Amino acid sequence: MKTGNIPEPTVRRLSLYLRELENLWRADHRTVASRKLAAALKFTATQIRKDLAYFGQFGQRGIGYDVGELITKIRHILGTDRTWNVLLVGAGNLGMALSAYRGFAKKGFKLVAVFDADPSKVGKSIPMQPEIRIQSVDEIPATVKEKDIRLAILAVPGEAAQPLVDTLVQSGIRGLLNFAPVSIDVDAKVAISSVDLAVQLEQLSFQVGSGV
Amino acid sequence: MKTGNIPEPTVRRLSLYLRELENLWRADHRTVASRKLAAALKFTATQIRKDLAYFGQFGQRGIGYDVGELITKIRHILGTDRTWNVLLVGAGNLGMALSAYRGFAKKGFKLVAVFDADPSKVGKSIPMQPEIRIQSVDEIPATVKEKDIRLAILAVPGEAAQPLVDTLVQSGIRGLLNFAPVSIDVDAKVAISSVDLAVQLEQLSFQVGSGV
Repeated sequence: MKTGNIPEPTVRRLSLYLRELENLWRADHRTVASRKLAAALKFTATQIRKDLAYFGQFGQRGIGYDVGELITKIRHILGTDRTWNVLLVGAGNLGMALSAYRGFAKKGFKLVAVFDADPSKVGKSIPMQPEIRIQSVDEIPATVKEKDIRLAILAVPGEAAQPLVDTLVQSGIRGLLNFAPVSIDVDAKVAISSVDLAVQLEQLSFQVGSGV
Repeated sequence: MKTGNIPEPTVRRLSLYLRELENLWRADHRTVASRKLAAALKFTATQIRKDLAYFGQFGQRGIGYDVGELITKIRHILGTDRTWNVLLVGAGNLGMALSAYRGFAKKGFKLVAVFDADPSKVGKSIPMQPEIRIQSVDEIPATVKEKDIRLAILAVPGEAAQPLVDTLVQSGIRGLLNFAPVSIDVDAKVAISSVDLAVQLEQLSFQVGSGV
């Protein structure tokens, strides 16, 4: 499938369509009109049809979309119907919390290796998955190749992030979920998605403070 | 201070300025030219001066900004120089991970109560803070008043989120950090900031999959 020309907002909306379709499926709906899907998500039916048209023909006039079929198709488009081997760098407080988060596995992100720069952590096992032992960051290149890892979760302090990202990318990592509170430079062929909890908290604190 | 007219992108940039200033402080820089701050953040010096002008006069021509003073001012503007009592709803896997995350305390978010709808969890203590015991969601209204809580972290399944948000807002909560994978309706006086890990993972999976 050629996906290079799909606009980013379309891909983002696919995630929202998928979630709504999964809700419908759980509520025993087996077909849905684009009009109804649109109303639930506050989009227009035209928008939904246009987005899905990038990926082929879906739905039948007068019947609507087959909910199960569309779920399968969108999961396939998003790539969450396959399993990705994932590594985590940073076995600190946030890293260990993330390693125990089951939502990753639900989207096909399988944690297979954890790294930390602190020698006192190396060799220790992680909660929930005692078979994984923390490795030294020096072992990143060899482990990425050996375990065929494409994705990395980064949960390290800001100042440690960029050199680690350079190592990860040179080792073959092609996608990064970044929790380090810093902006990261990567070349265009590497996908990066950042979750910046500090910024989110500050925005919330500002809004609540100014409304009080 | 009147903050109602500050554009949201300006407030978001304040978070980025603060982080860069904190880095400069740690590297023993005590003054910084707006030009240098701009270069580090890939903004223009004009942008920085314009953003800061919303909050008063900062910096001196030829010397630049006093790093320590500007950190103090921005923390005050963002409200992270005070302590907010925060509650958490959802003592599942993600909720317990978040309860152990030290980054909240660093921004002045003090966890003082945890709630769950599951009776088998009620009464149990949480990791890292054994003095906090999980309460029933029925106790939300009384506890919000008793402990003067303004902010809530929501880490519950999507279908449980909206009714809980309604309860929280009626109880007096004015800001929500939402990790539930669903969009939430609140009236305009309630601030909401959402972290949607599922969507982030799907976007990353799509980008990496289409680039392979």
